[in-house]
Amino acid sequence: MLNFENVSYAVIGAGNGGLAMAGYLALKGYSVNLYNRSREKLESLISYPVITLSGSVEGKSVLNLVTSDIGEAIQNTDIIMVTVPATGHYHLAKAMAPYLKDGQIIVLNPGRTGGALEVYETIRKSGCDKDIVVAEAQTFIYACRATGPNSARIFSVKNEVALAAIPATSTRRVIRLLSGAYPQFTPARDVMETSLNNFGAIFHPAPTLLNSGHIERGQAFEYYLEGITPSIGQMLERLDAERMKVARALGVKAVSALEWLEESYGAKGDSIYEAIQNNPAYKGLTAPKGLDTRYIYEDVPCSLVPIASIAEHLGIETPAIDTIIRLANMMTGRNFREEGRTVDKLGLKGLSVVEIHRLAQTGEVKKTTVHEQEVVA
Amino acid sequence: MLNFENVSYAVIGAGNGGLAMAGYLALKGYSVNLYNRSREKLESLISYPVITLSGSVEGKSVLNLVTSDIGEAIQNTDIIMVTVPATGHYHLAKAMAPYLKDGQIIVLNPGRTGGALEVYETIRKSGCDKDIVVAEAQTFIYACRATGPNSARIFSVKNEVALAAIPATSTRRVIRLLSGAYPQFTPARDVMETSLNNFGAIFHPAPTLLNSGHIERGQAFEYYLEGITPSIGQMLERLDAERMKVARALGVKAVSALEWLEESYGAKGDSIYEAIQNNPAYKGLTAPKGLDTRYIYEDVPCSLVPIASIAEHLGIETPAIDTIIRLANMMTGRNFREEGRTVDKLGLKGLSVVEIHRLAQTGEVKKTTVHEQEVVA
Repeated sequence: MLNFENVSYAVIGAGNGGLAMAGYLALKGYSVNLYNRSREKLESLISYPVITLSGSVEGKSVLNLVTSDIGEAIQNTDIIMVTVPATGHYHLAKAMAPYLKDGQIIVLNPGRTGGALEVYETIRKSGCDKDIVVAEAQTFIYACRATGPNSARIFSVKNEVALAAIPATSTRRVIRLLSGAYPQFTPARDVMETSLNNFGAIFHPAPTLLNSGHIERGQAFEYYLEGITPSIGQMLERLDAERMKVARALGVKAVSALEWLEESYGAKGDSIYEAIQNNPAYKGLTAPKGLDTRYIYEDVPCSLVPIASIAEHLGIETPAIDTIIRLANMMTGRNFREEGRTVDKLGLKGLSVVEIHRLAQTGEVKKTTVHEQEVVA
Repeated sequence: MLNFENVSYAVIGAGNGGLAMAGYLALKGYSVNLYNRSREKLESLISYPVITLSGSVEGKSVLNLVTSDIGEAIQNTDIIMVTVPATGHYHLAKAMAPYLKDGQIIVLNPGRTGGALEVYETIRKSGCDKDIVVAEAQTFIYACRATGPNSARIFSVKNEVALAAIPATSTRRVIRLLSGAYPQFTPARDVMETSLNNFGAIFHPAPTLLNSGHIERGQAFEYYLEGITPSIGQMLERLDAERMKVARALGVKAVSALEWLEESYGAKGDSIYEAIQNNPAYKGLTAPKGLDTRYIYEDVPCSLVPIASIAEHLGIETPAIDTIIRLANMMTGRNFREEGRTVDKLGLKGLSVVEIHRLAQTGEVKKTTVHEQEVVA
């Protein structure tokens, strides 16, 4: 029987996070298949499938398989750890769908907002009727960086990361299976909770855009400690208040950014600006060196847009979030609202709050009966 | 008879621009009364009414009167040169209204967008029925800085500054009277042209907000050459396109920011970003040292808001301008759309394009006849 000692893993994505995670899981003795879409990135690992970790975790480990073939990568694995940017979740789900087997578990590290819902919906729409669990972590477990094609450095490991599965009835089983490698995962009520407590939505796009001159010129500065000034902090509080409002309307246990800074880092303050200034863990986290950053290209379509879209669906106004999305569109020439995760893409269109949670809990959209339809009409 | 040799001036505002202008006019031999609302700023000038100029213009001159009494300041003057921020125009107009005399000319240096209209409307609403001309310059004639309570430095003098009066039939007379001191003023068709070709609307609020982290921390950088990067330039092009659209809908000769950079500085480029990089005149113009700057507090309510309000009045959408106004509101906690110059405050409410120009041309709002009202209703 499958238990946390004999699970086998696929790690999807050989970037900063994927290398660290694959190296760590292999080091813990698990069988690990590492996948990356582009084969170039894997050349060195294919000829020498060894990852060396440094930092919080040190050691050398051998991978079971390194491949750019998605079918091969996930074959005979129990848990598929996804580490690609959230903008890649949709295409990955479509690519995996034909190869998925009953009982496999997909874990998005992290899902941003609506990741598990989008992957779950996409797998179904792609014609896969297997019994698949799709889980999402609220954030990535490491602060880490690839240091070469065969090596990564783990700067720190989070003490606690919330995780939820679709169906939510599987959350505890997923956490138990992961616990041999990662005892840090704790259960959230369902994916609406992990999705709405996505602090990347607050801390990534707005400070990046409001420091865009220096970021685009590639000038180094402390992203949090210098980049978030009192007025920018005030903007983040508006964004956070809107996120909380949507979370509350969904009946989700909403954590404010201020509470989260204290819980995660012990950083206190009367405002987001103050708490950030009082967070030594942010020291050394420098700004991206260009506007071509995940802080925009991932967090606008996969964090802000789904929150705005769910808000609209529930009749809640989000003027601050809308302003940041529009600004990002205008500065990049993209249309993130169209590209991003809307209620439609998340499979939430037309669902009430109760029906949304039922979907998250059971994986099934409750069919509205003819009688109920009449009542609604 | 009044001519350009015997006009007497009042200069309103003893800031950077007011000191330079008062010093220059006195140096040219004109009688100059200098006014400032706060008396503290004037103490030194009251006891010793002499201004020393350095830079492009050098010399020492004696003022006729230095006062914080508005009635006294404008008494027996022909031309009232206003140099206070546009946010002060409304209150100034109310304060001057009881003391204005037939034939006096008010010149706003500059009016930003809608300055002359707002002052004209406010004087009328304050019960003043005197024959007053209100003119606005498109920009301030100097780049200058006060260097002490009795001294100013003029870095450069513009070669040409457009000016228009209400009524526009007086524009040439105003320019003739000013020409003894300032031959640089050239006639615009009417105040809609000077108001819509307000490049502060494009170059001030957006780059300030998009560099707000470094500006709020007071870090020195080149405002134009470093602060306007390719993506920020792209945002400015969107703002400029919306401004041009409103101008064209008003039948105004609209100059693009790109054309203006070439006309004013010989700075060429395929984009605003490129043209700015090719403008050596911008070298040394550093960013404001805080967000408490006229680039926000003057140019949002008195440049962007009136353009957005006129656009709305004409049924034109201005998503980029709206985004910058909202962002400014959210970052400052103000409501610039309410505080700022709306069509209502400019006396344009309910007027057609033809009626707007008739107001600018004649100073009279055409009364709609009962018959016409019926047709409209």
